[in-house]
Amino acid sequence: MVPALLERVPGQQPSEDLARERGRTSIDVAAMTHMLDGGAEKTAWRRKVQAIVERDPVFSNERNHQLPRLERYRRGLEKCKQMVTLLNSLGLSATSLLTDEGRVLLDAIADDQPTFIHALMFIPNIQQLCDEEQLARWLPEALSWRMIGCYAQTELGHGSNIRALETTATYIPETQEFEINTPTLTATKFWPGTLGRSANTAMVIAQLIVDGERLGIHNFIVPIRDRSTHLPLPGIHAGDIGPKLGFNNMDNGYLVLDKVRVPRSNMAARYAYVNEEGQYVRRTTAAGADKVAYITMMQVRAFIIKDAGRKLAQACTIGVRYSVVRRQGRANDSSKETQILDYSTQAHRLITLVATAYCWYFTGEAAIKVLRDLEAKLRCGDPDVATQMKAAHASFSGLKALTSGITADGMEDIRRACGGHGYLMASGLPELLQVYVQNCTVEGDNYMLPQQVMRILLKELEGTRSGRPPSGGCSYFARASSLLGSVCSAHTGDELRSCAALLHAYEHRAVRLVFHVAQCLQEGSFEACSLSDAVEEGKPAATAWNETLVEIGRASRAHSMLIALKAFADALESNVIVPKNRKVLSLMFSLFGLFWMERDMADFVEDGYLDSTQAIHVRKQVLALIGELRSDAVALVDAWDISDFCLKSTIGRFDGDIYPALLADAQQSTLNATDPVQGWYEHGRPLESGEVAKKFEGLEAALKTQQRTVSRL
Amino acid sequence: MVPALLERVPGQQPSEDLARERGRTSIDVAAMTHMLDGGAEKTAWRRKVQAIVERDPVFSNERNHQLPRLERYRRGLEKCKQMVTLLNSLGLSATSLLTDEGRVLLDAIADDQPTFIHALMFIPNIQQLCDEEQLARWLPEALSWRMIGCYAQTELGHGSNIRALETTATYIPETQEFEINTPTLTATKFWPGTLGRSANTAMVIAQLIVDGERLGIHNFIVPIRDRSTHLPLPGIHAGDIGPKLGFNNMDNGYLVLDKVRVPRSNMAARYAYVNEEGQYVRRTTAAGADKVAYITMMQVRAFIIKDAGRKLAQACTIGVRYSVVRRQGRANDSSKETQILDYSTQAHRLITLVATAYCWYFTGEAAIKVLRDLEAKLRCGDPDVATQMKAAHASFSGLKALTSGITADGMEDIRRACGGHGYLMASGLPELLQVYVQNCTVEGDNYMLPQQVMRILLKELEGTRSGRPPSGGCSYFARASSLLGSVCSAHTGDELRSCAALLHAYEHRAVRLVFHVAQCLQEGSFEACSLSDAVEEGKPAATAWNETLVEIGRASRAHSMLIALKAFADALESNVIVPKNRKVLSLMFSLFGLFWMERDMADFVEDGYLDSTQAIHVRKQVLALIGELRSDAVALVDAWDISDFCLKSTIGRFDGDIYPALLADAQQSTLNATDPVQGWYEHGRPLESGEVAKKFEGLEAALKTQQRTVSRL
Repeated sequence: MVPALLERVPGQQPSEDLARERGRTSIDVAAMTHMLDGGAEKTAWRRKVQAIVERDPVFSNERNHQLPRLERYRRGLEKCKQMVTLLNSLGLSATSLLTDEGRVLLDAIADDQPTFIHALMFIPNIQQLCDEEQLARWLPEALSWRMIGCYAQTELGHGSNIRALETTATYIPETQEFEINTPTLTATKFWPGTLGRSANTAMVIAQLIVDGERLGIHNFIVPIRDRSTHLPLPGIHAGDIGPKLGFNNMDNGYLVLDKVRVPRSNMAARYAYVNEEGQYVRRTTAAGADKVAYITMMQVRAFIIKDAGRKLAQACTIGVRYSVVRRQGRANDSSKETQILDYSTQAHRLITLVATAYCWYFTGEAAIKVLRDLEAKLRCGDPDVATQMKAAHASFSGLKALTSGITADGMEDIRRACGGHGYLMASGLPELLQVYVQNCTVEGDNYMLPQQVMRILLKELEGTRSGRPPSGGCSYFARASSLLGSVCSAHTGDELRSCAALLHAYEHRAVRLVFHVAQCLQEGSFEACSLSDAVEEGKPAATAWNETLVEIGRASRAHSMLIALKAFADALESNVIVPKNRKVLSLMFSLFGLFWMERDMADFVEDGYLDSTQAIHVRKQVLALIGELRSDAVALVDAWDISDFCLKSTIGRFDGDIYPALLADAQQSTLNATDPVQGWYEHGRPLESGEVAKKFEGLEAALKTQQRTVSRL
Repeated sequence: MVPALLERVPGQQPSEDLARERGRTSIDVAAMTHMLDGGAEKTAWRRKVQAIVERDPVFSNERNHQLPRLERYRRGLEKCKQMVTLLNSLGLSATSLLTDEGRVLLDAIADDQPTFIHALMFIPNIQQLCDEEQLARWLPEALSWRMIGCYAQTELGHGSNIRALETTATYIPETQEFEINTPTLTATKFWPGTLGRSANTAMVIAQLIVDGERLGIHNFIVPIRDRSTHLPLPGIHAGDIGPKLGFNNMDNGYLVLDKVRVPRSNMAARYAYVNEEGQYVRRTTAAGADKVAYITMMQVRAFIIKDAGRKLAQACTIGVRYSVVRRQGRANDSSKETQILDYSTQAHRLITLVATAYCWYFTGEAAIKVLRDLEAKLRCGDPDVATQMKAAHASFSGLKALTSGITADGMEDIRRACGGHGYLMASGLPELLQVYVQNCTVEGDNYMLPQQVMRILLKELEGTRSGRPPSGGCSYFARASSLLGSVCSAHTGDELRSCAALLHAYEHRAVRLVFHVAQCLQEGSFEACSLSDAVEEGKPAATAWNETLVEIGRASRAHSMLIALKAFADALESNVIVPKNRKVLSLMFSLFGLFWMERDMADFVEDGYLDSTQAIHVRKQVLALIGELRSDAVALVDAWDISDFCLKSTIGRFDGDIYPALLADAQQSTLNATDPVQGWYEHGRPLESGEVAKKFEGLEAALKTQQRTVSRL
């Protein structure tokens, strides 16, 4: 007979603690949700889509964390099929998955699909890199999913340095074909998503060779699997690369091309092509190619910035709710133990990250606005657009590294803050992080991006010194000398919390560290070198540049933090916030600014900008703000409106009835399928029967040693 | 036909880069290995055991990362069976797994066994908590593995606060039995290792109730599974709790006890028992119980400290070797790309952690030595032992939190430093971290331990103020006033690198932050409270204590860092280091000290101890030291002598032939078992055939939108 407590269904006893927390909030949760969605209509749309998905058993995420990888893949494929049908019924197409409207659907499904790269990268690259004729040929196939594509760039031996890719595409004039080939082991395509088992077509990035001449990197459309049997085509050797830390629904793949021929017309021809005479021709439109590439890269980074907010909020939702329901340690007034969120360390870990998630949201929104402005300027041929794009690119690259790094680390800290239960897959935290953390590596490794940021910042700095006004996020360079000479004038708590004081402090730090980098570069090399030498790769100043990389990282972070803080400050001035929520967001702004000042305190005290009394004040204000925000903590995570279906967390449930949920999930463990467990008769029984030990001649001696050990103490 | 490059066997082309690095080292690698093993004989023993294990196919770890959880469990059980046989042939027993001699075997197997807790916790607790009669009854059964035990303490709703455990053991005088019961859902035992599917016996921690009186927490031996069928006994409901972030060979379990009866003699009776008359009796030996418990806790923490060194070294081995073989980015002198370890950021991330791993080794050794001394003093009845144990306990607790936290974070940073390939399970880094990271939570959560540390430090401080000499690691308190008033007198690089300067700086910081905590506690509460009030839990000063937790964490870290640095400094003065390795270890000492000063820079500059010029010097010295250690980096990780069998890493292989290893492993992916992949006909084909899209009425409209989007840019 199973005791009743093992059969309790989660949800029968919603947590009183959570109800009480929700009752005492000062904020308008619904209005906050609308703000985060970008308007009440968008909230309605999101909830509509969410409801459709959650009703459909095909989309169930119920036992995700118990399933073996192959089954996760298979279910991911099934979800894709279902999603295409759903897109259809909603009047959307694959490309809409990249718009706000369609992304809602991906968020609602809350599980990765192996075909993701087809919509995320293959179709957009077709759109950007193909000429009109090719578009007419391939787009309908791609949009109807008959062509399922991947983007085959990275090789086994080559990542970020695209120029070093080894795969070749040699033009064969006789047949008007390209021969795509993997000449070495390290040239094997490795990592492209959707390539392993799902794609029937690859956009292959290869070195073009015409008439013995190497003409750089170009893109080729290469059929890799037969569209009826889905078996690899001749010369194609492809497969999945095996299990990863996360993202295991996805079949990241390898691809060896053994002299595979494709027609001349399969080279993506928008900017360059090989004509019938076998001549390489660059089109006049090619000049705009780098701008388009820039915009695309920036678009992806803007998305990563905004998504960091939502993903960090997801972890916060689990962490805050759990910390309100979980009780441990000495009782305060009541007979109950203390809610763990009432320990100042726990609140310090969690509430600061809640504020950070909101900041990422505003930062992402601001980035998208910048991007839209640039696109508009590009269309109307604004002459300054190239410079502005560079400044924006520096901000986006820095922000991508900043937000993804802090979000990944924050998720892990939240997981640890949930103690043992956070270590369970069923808590939802491990997989959230395991999938998320790839953002620190993809789309520009977080340790490489600061170099891109700094090259642009140094050029802006040089420009500013020669009288040109700095663009975009670098506008504070114009006030460099006054910033550098200043100290913090804020002394009281209220002063330290203010927008003006925080922005000034972050501007001071950023300009100081950028100047410091410039100085290191000029001093650091034994050869005399100008600043602009150091900025160019491969110049004699390469050594100085390399020796300054750590400082470049610090300066890039300082610049990016400032941009993020400014985005938050701007939002406070805007009309997206309803009056009732203004105060709490203003407290969160101050908390964000002061907490990350506390974290990087050395940057602010080292040059005397803050004195030791101010430093202590900063720490006190962080604790004070956490205290003031404590009663709104649950409401602030609730406002993100991340459903239980998306959270996939026993301990982050909206109703807080976590213990029966944990126990019910435990009972589903694959190890509990049989009794005794599979393998017991084979390997456990011989131990338990004493059969193995019978041969144990040393037993008597060992026993004597034990007795000695015991009586020793 | 499969191209030859897909069939290349790893190991055919050892890396020239690694060979060159090994050729240019200045150190005596063999001597360093002997030092890390604790002597040449121990190295020989370790290699002998390693060779036996690696020869035996049962112990193969070859495809670990491709196996589903149930299979990992089954294989873990098989390995345990084989290990018991092997222990026998080596003349060892289960208890030897806790000694240096036996631990070598666990390290050699390099895979977790579900029965681990039997040897790690069950047997030691039997030894410590049972009386002679019970020992004679149970020890032979446990040592022969007929009794397979677990330690059932943690409950679903209760972790660290043991006093709040809800499970009851009610004495029934009529039958001279205890009735062990799970009264509520949150009382369900949850998390104990080996409990889920493997153990047939549990040591259950429960509230003893005799004659209606609650007598606190006691331990009971409860049979839970039938020894012949291995099925649960009546009233027992147990199972595995499901998949975790890591450690999935282990069947952490849940247990509901439905009024289960055990004989009176099953209460562990060394310190207290219930007699035939139903009276609760405390033995006179009970006074020593807390000391024994202390020693046990300290032993586990000392092991965690030392193990942190080896585990961090394992990650460093993979990271450093990969960074020497992997090339990326602009060429320097040759036509080849740059070895990524030659980027200063990469070297900064990796070589600082190599130094940290060595420091943890020395710190662990020092901790074990302290422990042995205390045991000796305890045996000969030294009257001061209690005080000394407390001071040591503070150090061990702080060091456990410090070393496990930095090690876990370091592993993740190394994983990210290996780029995309570090994200593959086959890199060996994800599972290493996933299993390791539990050390931040178990045996005292890293965010709770600082409280234990600080309570003791504050008492030592008060004692010192009243003239008592501080004990053990707190000896620097005696110099508090001179430390507090001082500034750093080191100005040149050589001065900053010196033992004296570094120890002084860390002592200054530690004493400053401990004093700061004391001050916060006295000021912080509105009620007047003395320091000693604040130190005791539950006193009126609880609020002040709670508000000071963040500062307590900083101070505890500062104290622990000092202890670690001092252990490294002491080792440099000792004879365990051969002359040829003295220089490199001295450089690593300086790097360790200066790097962690750089990381916590605010602590050192905030009060003016370092000025801004000195702070810049610290950063420059860190880079200079990394440069000086660069040529020894490979030798320094090689010295740990962690075999490929234990590394389980395609990218950290000793021979550096990583690319064929990556590709060979990829081909083993479970997703590659069939062609097309399983599930394709069901869910992929309908997409690829256009069948799903046929219903897609919106296609035409979507196409038009696409064309517009494309022509926009």
